[in-house]
Amino acid sequence: MKRAVALLSGGLDSATTLALARQSGFEVYTLSVDYGQRHRHELTCAARIADQLGSARHIVVEVDLRRIGGSALTDEIDVPKDRPLEQMQQEIPITYVPARNTVFLSLALGYAEVVEAFDLFIGANAIDYSGYPDCRPAFLQAFEQLANLATKAAIEGKGRFRVHAPVLSMTKAQIIQTGSALGVDFSLTSSCYEPTADGLACGRCDSCLLRRQGFIEAGIPDPTRYAPTSR
Amino acid sequence: MKRAVALLSGGLDSATTLALARQSGFEVYTLSVDYGQRHRHELTCAARIADQLGSARHIVVEVDLRRIGGSALTDEIDVPKDRPLEQMQQEIPITYVPARNTVFLSLALGYAEVVEAFDLFIGANAIDYSGYPDCRPAFLQAFEQLANLATKAAIEGKGRFRVHAPVLSMTKAQIIQTGSALGVDFSLTSSCYEPTADGLACGRCDSCLLRRQGFIEAGIPDPTRYAPTSR
Repeated sequence: MKRAVALLSGGLDSATTLALARQSGFEVYTLSVDYGQRHRHELTCAARIADQLGSARHIVVEVDLRRIGGSALTDEIDVPKDRPLEQMQQEIPITYVPARNTVFLSLALGYAEVVEAFDLFIGANAIDYSGYPDCRPAFLQAFEQLANLATKAAIEGKGRFRVHAPVLSMTKAQIIQTGSALGVDFSLTSSCYEPTADGLACGRCDSCLLRRQGFIEAGIPDPTRYAPTSR
Repeated sequence: MKRAVALLSGGLDSATTLALARQSGFEVYTLSVDYGQRHRHELTCAARIADQLGSARHIVVEVDLRRIGGSALTDEIDVPKDRPLEQMQQEIPITYVPARNTVFLSLALGYAEVVEAFDLFIGANAIDYSGYPDCRPAFLQAFEQLANLATKAAIEGKGRFRVHAPVLSMTKAQIIQTGSALGVDFSLTSSCYEPTADGLACGRCDSCLLRRQGFIEAGIPDPTRYAPTSR
């Protein structure tokens, strides 16, 4: 069985991406990154999703991006709340983490080399946040090129790395419908940037708003447990 | 003054690279990576070199590459000893760490974005180990391309990232001569893959052998403190 490595954040997009990788017949090694994110609850979710969807081995790599800073997800900066969709799409939000997907894909590449996989799956999505630079096709293509120059496995001719982003051009509703059809249990996932200590979603950050709207548009009941203070 | 970010390992190559960046007039922010390397002594050396050469700010980012494994530098695999130079150059050694420079440059890129630098310096060297894939010019060029697609700073047109590897084509002797001329105190550096707890060099791993030979060829006294068991 061909092996792949999938990045798993604990959210909707990467869960559906993993399900798609499994459906394509890959034995999938999953990787989550503990980067000092304030919403650490997503790491618990990632492990549960890995289990539900039959990951061959799930690892968590620690990278302390707080040392670098520059984001509302790692620093003590307020996460924006209650923003209309149009505003979210106007600019790259403060929740952007400098070079995050570059760091994550680099770790996935190292993991892939060790488990002898050449297919990397990432749940990047270019629709909801048109602004995140490292969620665009040109970035993913450039990383694929880099991967084939960066590694012992590639230059020894053992294979050619490919970066797969199967939900890249899907709307949130399409991602939810696709994942549901493949049996993803979305109640195990978390998208909130600022969940409570018990893992309840705030319902008001950009990520919660996009998720909630996605379930409505998909016509699928939203299994998210929201905090009493959500709207 | 223009800002730059330099990766600092604690060894000769990155110390000379930092000195060259300073000589070029950059205010340099330095970054070392605590990746679970067995030779952690190099992190102490990196901090001392940063201080000696006037780093604007030195940070250490933790990335636990032991979770990924696959290298003699992070796993309990014997580091090769007493190998002739020709043998070192025949194949990519077991001290290769999967995707290491890709991970390191990604972190440098994130740091650069936060401190508003566009110039990244890395002490990659293509001469001694012709085998390390991520020390080749083609790899560094591919990373530069990636950096200009990966970041908010680049796509907003604030600047263009450049990857500088000024010692890439120098021999070890040339690196030592260049660093010496710029005032690098090489007694603060460490190259050994398996130093003693006190930081004494083994004198027998590939890295020690290349370093020792480099000082001889450079005609400069070797300030390295070797363990009594070295040859």
